[in-house]
Amino acid sequence: MDKIKNNLFLKALKGEDLHRPPVWIMRQAGRYLPDFMKLKEKYDFFTRCQTPELACEITMMPIRQIGLDAAIIFSDILVIPQAMGVNVEMKNNFGPFIEFPIKDESDIENLDIYNIEERLDYVFQAIDMTKKALNNEVPLIGFAGSPWTILCYMVEGSGSKNFAKAKNFCFKNPELAHRLLKKITQATITYLKKKVSSGVNTVQLFDSWGGVLSHLDYQIFSFPYIKEICDSLKANTPIIIYPKGCWHSLSSYSKIGASAIGIDWTCSARNARYLTRNNITLQGNFDPSRLFSSKKDIKKQTLSMLDEFGKNKYIANLGHGILPNTPVENVKTFVKTIKEYQ
Amino acid sequence: MDKIKNNLFLKALKGEDLHRPPVWIMRQAGRYLPDFMKLKEKYDFFTRCQTPELACEITMMPIRQIGLDAAIIFSDILVIPQAMGVNVEMKNNFGPFIEFPIKDESDIENLDIYNIEERLDYVFQAIDMTKKALNNEVPLIGFAGSPWTILCYMVEGSGSKNFAKAKNFCFKNPELAHRLLKKITQATITYLKKKVSSGVNTVQLFDSWGGVLSHLDYQIFSFPYIKEICDSLKANTPIIIYPKGCWHSLSSYSKIGASAIGIDWTCSARNARYLTRNNITLQGNFDPSRLFSSKKDIKKQTLSMLDEFGKNKYIANLGHGILPNTPVENVKTFVKTIKEYQ
Repeated sequence: MDKIKNNLFLKALKGEDLHRPPVWIMRQAGRYLPDFMKLKEKYDFFTRCQTPELACEITMMPIRQIGLDAAIIFSDILVIPQAMGVNVEMKNNFGPFIEFPIKDESDIENLDIYNIEERLDYVFQAIDMTKKALNNEVPLIGFAGSPWTILCYMVEGSGSKNFAKAKNFCFKNPELAHRLLKKITQATITYLKKKVSSGVNTVQLFDSWGGVLSHLDYQIFSFPYIKEICDSLKANTPIIIYPKGCWHSLSSYSKIGASAIGIDWTCSARNARYLTRNNITLQGNFDPSRLFSSKKDIKKQTLSMLDEFGKNKYIANLGHGILPNTPVENVKTFVKTIKEYQ
Repeated sequence: MDKIKNNLFLKALKGEDLHRPPVWIMRQAGRYLPDFMKLKEKYDFFTRCQTPELACEITMMPIRQIGLDAAIIFSDILVIPQAMGVNVEMKNNFGPFIEFPIKDESDIENLDIYNIEERLDYVFQAIDMTKKALNNEVPLIGFAGSPWTILCYMVEGSGSKNFAKAKNFCFKNPELAHRLLKKITQATITYLKKKVSSGVNTVQLFDSWGGVLSHLDYQIFSFPYIKEICDSLKANTPIIIYPKGCWHSLSSYSKIGASAIGIDWTCSARNARYLTRNNITLQGNFDPSRLFSSKKDIKKQTLSMLDEFGKNKYIANLGHGILPNTPVENVKTFVKTIKEYQ
């Protein structure tokens, strides 16, 4: 860490006082950058993930073109079910698609969690290549989906508004659900440990679909597995937990030894500070759709976000992934406002 | 009101002490009842809405077959854009679809808000017929979408996970958005006033998509219009506001003269009572997916919901609409547990 020239982000994860907050953007490595869109026309989604040279190039794009304070390796949370033996496709204008989703005990038995490192070797190669390309300019973030969020896709077979099929599976067969969650947790720990030993400076856990669960079911089906991953890794790396829509669990997350919690735009800085007793670094929470506003509005709203969160124990970011077609100039306005913040 | 034999629901809206809470179910008039599914095969969605005899028959089904404490007129929130001149279709396995969504100023100018009563006469006829069929057994609920939620569909053109297109429209063109919201508000007030004079005993406003907005934007694009509707109607009828995913605004809603607030399953009874200072009747909040659990689990979880909310200032319900394919026996277990609660 000491070698990294711009270490604002790592200092924020430690809760150190800073002259301005660091900034990075969820999904910064793609979707809105014209150079990324050109690569997208030439190579399909998983080719981009699985070719270390492409993943490295995409990861570097926003660092060079937007100037963020941290890089995040280009990949996808669904590489884990793939490595467990599930066939995941990424369909144009549709998103992830699994032809044979998990439906019973034998499907779960058949999942392989013993060849994760080998099958995801392309990720570790990409990390190695990216670390060299970054040349210690900024830190590199690794990530994974939360076990609950990965289960959602594995059982539903696609994205969904409410993941009713995945939830029904869990509520009808809670024992099977826990068996599946345990296997995903195990695979994820193996994966993230190897990511850390490959050189990422922190890992973020995306619980993108935790918000479809009740506050009670969240404590049964999501929180314990995230805690288990956190317990296995926190000695070796700072951990950021991003529990979208789970304001009810911010207090629990502030107590498990993570280094930061990602906040979405439905939760105010004031509420998030109150719920976490100002004990932990917070990350977020600009609404990605608000990057379609006028530059004047973006600047004004970014400043009020900064004022509300404050300069310390804070990492500026969006509250979820950047949207396709976001104007690059607007992203630059957002980042510039943060970098010039006094 | 005095004439209605089972007036538990109306008493709960007044905050009166009760021996047990009343129960009804969002979307109770359809989707899971076998008799409804038979009608669905014969008549398309809007034929069912627009034929008073069918709407009445569907409204009565769950009263006769499940025994709920309130009826809700079978209809849809999208009858308002239809009455304003927008062509709304309901596509099988897809949901609402608008071929020509609102995209600019002239589209908004062309919306007609002066013929709402005439165009929605079939709803008022259905109410009249249903009041006769109910024979004062239980009260009848009328409803409408919130202006924000209706705008979401009118601009997006369909359902969506995040209504990014609708939000982008509003954030790029806030003035146009407000002009559209004002027109929807006006049409909704006209519609609901006529519903009340036709005989409904209360109205519920569904802000199903308020949760896609930030806590700040919610106060700009949704709350003020719901308040305006509430101000126009509260002298004549009790109002229930259902702001899904908007726990941040529960405190605001407890102060505008509504009679109850609907709570979704991400917010605990304890939090909801805290945020509303126990000033108002709460309604909810069983996760509809939890009706797919075993009967034993349903009973246990329903009891703990009842214990948490308490018998007073409380209306038992789901936290959102009942899901298609919900087992009828499980719905009966849910309702029986509430009716036998001491």
